[in-house]
Amino acid sequence: MKRTSRDIRIANRFEVLRRIIGAPMVSRQQIASETGLSLATAANLIGELMELGLLVEVGFQDSGGGRPRGVVSVNPSGGVLVGVDVAETYVHVELFDAALGVLASVEEELHPRENRPEQVVAHIASGVQAAFEAAGVGPDRVLGAGVSVPGQVDREGGVSVYAPNWDWHDVPLRSLLAESLDLPLYLDNPLRACVVAELWFGAGRGRDDVVVVNLGTGVGAGLAFGGTLYRGATNSAGEWGHTTLVVDGRLCHCGSRGCVETYVGAPGIMQTLRDLAPNSPLLHPEDQTATIEALAHGVAAGDPVAAKVVTETARYLGVAVADLINLVNPEVIVLSSWVAARLGESLLAEVGAVVAQHALSRPLAATEITLCQIAGNPVSLGAATFALKRFLAGIGTPAGGLIRRV
Amino acid sequence: MKRTSRDIRIANRFEVLRRIIGAPMVSRQQIASETGLSLATAANLIGELMELGLLVEVGFQDSGGGRPRGVVSVNPSGGVLVGVDVAETYVHVELFDAALGVLASVEEELHPRENRPEQVVAHIASGVQAAFEAAGVGPDRVLGAGVSVPGQVDREGGVSVYAPNWDWHDVPLRSLLAESLDLPLYLDNPLRACVVAELWFGAGRGRDDVVVVNLGTGVGAGLAFGGTLYRGATNSAGEWGHTTLVVDGRLCHCGSRGCVETYVGAPGIMQTLRDLAPNSPLLHPEDQTATIEALAHGVAAGDPVAAKVVTETARYLGVAVADLINLVNPEVIVLSSWVAARLGESLLAEVGAVVAQHALSRPLAATEITLCQIAGNPVSLGAATFALKRFLAGIGTPAGGLIRRV
Ligand SMILES: [Zn+2]
Ligand SMILES: [Zn+2]
Repeated sequence: MKRTSRDIRIANRFEVLRRIIGAPMVSRQQIASETGLSLATAANLIGELMELGLLVEVGFQDSGGGRPRGVVSVNPSGGVLVGVDVAETYVHVELFDAALGVLASVEEELHPRENRPEQVVAHIASGVQAAFEAAGVGPDRVLGAGVSVPGQVDREGGVSVYAPNWDWHDVPLRSLLAESLDLPLYLDNPLRACVVAELWFGAGRGRDDVVVVNLGTGVGAGLAFGGTLYRGATNSAGEWGHTTLVVDGRLCHCGSRGCVETYVGAPGIMQTLRDLAPNSPLLHPEDQTATIEALAHGVAAGDPVAAKVVTETARYLGVAVADLINLVNPEVIVLSSWVAARLGESLLAEVGAVVAQHALSRPLAATEITLCQIAGNPVSLGAATFALKRFLAGIGTPAGGLIRRV
Repeated sequence: MKRTSRDIRIANRFEVLRRIIGAPMVSRQQIASETGLSLATAANLIGELMELGLLVEVGFQDSGGGRPRGVVSVNPSGGVLVGVDVAETYVHVELFDAALGVLASVEEELHPRENRPEQVVAHIASGVQAAFEAAGVGPDRVLGAGVSVPGQVDREGGVSVYAPNWDWHDVPLRSLLAESLDLPLYLDNPLRACVVAELWFGAGRGRDDVVVVNLGTGVGAGLAFGGTLYRGATNSAGEWGHTTLVVDGRLCHCGSRGCVETYVGAPGIMQTLRDLAPNSPLLHPEDQTATIEALAHGVAAGDPVAAKVVTETARYLGVAVADLINLVNPEVIVLSSWVAARLGESLLAEVGAVVAQHALSRPLAATEITLCQIAGNPVSLGAATFALKRFLAGIGTPAGGLIRRV
């Protein structure tokens, strides 16, 4: 609970930049009034960010009689950020400018079972290299690289503590990556990356209590309370995918039974399809991506099996989402990640009625359920945002930004 | 997210008093260093609380060479606080001094079906009156009264929005109570009262992320994140009792099926007993309290049916507690309320193994599961703490404390 004046300064620096990225052209007075900081503090922080080249003065604003006020904006060419989304089936790399605009985007497929740490690290390194070439920039302009990996992460130590779908335990990712990428690295997981992306750029903007439900191979719920990412005691909060939906239900990678993930994650949806129609041509036994794609096409084409799978999945998802509403009482629940991108519209059409049967009316009425609206990859965006935050925290320290950039 | 300087001053005032209540004799310097406030601000806030009669100077402390430092303490006779715990089966009233020490304690039983609002209000009023008489104080010395009622509460409007076990909807409790109690009233529910009691005086002290599992007639999980009570968007967070444990399971008051409450609340435990041994002499069909008491005695006496009921209940409770660990990743989970007071030891002995089967190892290792250790009634204590907090927030406003007490 106790924060030092240095912590507060870093938080304020970050908040000022976040506001300016959010509202492209603002005066120091507007920033002071939006953040509750004094004008002197806001001006001082803005000056610091201008010195770093992250902000520029872009003009003047009429102040209604007084002196015209200087208006500042993010300087997109103030630096480059790398955001990497490592999922079970792909590695997605995006390069961003300092305003978090996309400069380049590269995706490498991970084949089923291509999941040894050195294989994944090689894909990250080649993806980043390809993105540099596509954008025509070099590593010297990079302020930092954020890498999201599935499962539980020790972000301080840079270790993937546990990735259940790959059976990874204590993989020292930061040191493995350091051999091929000479960039300031920030490691976290997609739940947290998605929440930050939604808070900065998506449905979480201006909201306090936000849940981002990630539907991919793995499943989880990123949490933000009071407008801030919630990590829990060991950075493992949000493992909603491993809460029990069906007592004594389907066996899960994590060792438990009946976890939410075994019903609404991509392999769980495949299992539901297998249970309903074992010989369905929609089923690609070794390929989650292809199966989910086939289901999406099937629904669009009126295939009754595909519709049945969606209805069944929406029933499980609806109960588990209602649990989040009753326990967390959020303002918004965002459905994100690649399964939501493909099946989200169909699921959303049916999930509301199930949620309404299971959620209490007061919190239900306060919750919007929506699909992720962020263009591009929200996990890469969030990972890059983490890297920016880490860069800002390092300013003024010996190993930190100011010295690095001089 | 934006806090005014007045909000910050109220929060600091509260935090200073909380620290001094927690560590009875401290210097201004210690408070400044513990809270991160400047010495001038801490001294100023302490001066304000002394003027109100809530703190007194109690001596001097050696400062290792410099001038001796003044040591302050709470002044127990600075005022009286009322804390009322309204449950489905009783109304418990406690009077506290300004240090939150108990002055008097009164409990009135609520008979089954004695649950119309005017009946409950009459018990509250007579309980408060009896407590005043027992302590020999009058309402003129009361800084405020906190009243906890089960279910969902609109604390601003003073309305019990929804109490599922009584089928209360939008009962205007504050105005009903105002007719018989001329005290500044603060309304909330037991989940929130218990969390505040644990944060100030119990297992939550000095901890950031805390869950208080309330096991009574109703069931819920009070939440604190970052050392602060979490309310959610509509003050309804924590309705863990109405998250789904068994899809299509037992019918719940809330209209859903298979809610946690229908298995681990007192009526749910009775149902488990009925399912296992419909003619058991432990079962008092119209009396939850007597049945839970009988089960507790049965376990102590080695009754196999009672043991079976505990095992079955621990199995349900363990799965639902593991869900909290995986989703929330707290430092501590406290089992509280009257069912935990009676059956908690037996449940705790069996619940750990079930939790270990269902929780992920990283968050599991970080979570202590413990019984509420607060002497007396934690809900009354938390409700009185709310009343104190409201009193502190009112200082300096026209309707607020300073003027009231002059
Ligand atoms: Zn699992
Ligand atoms: Zn229910």
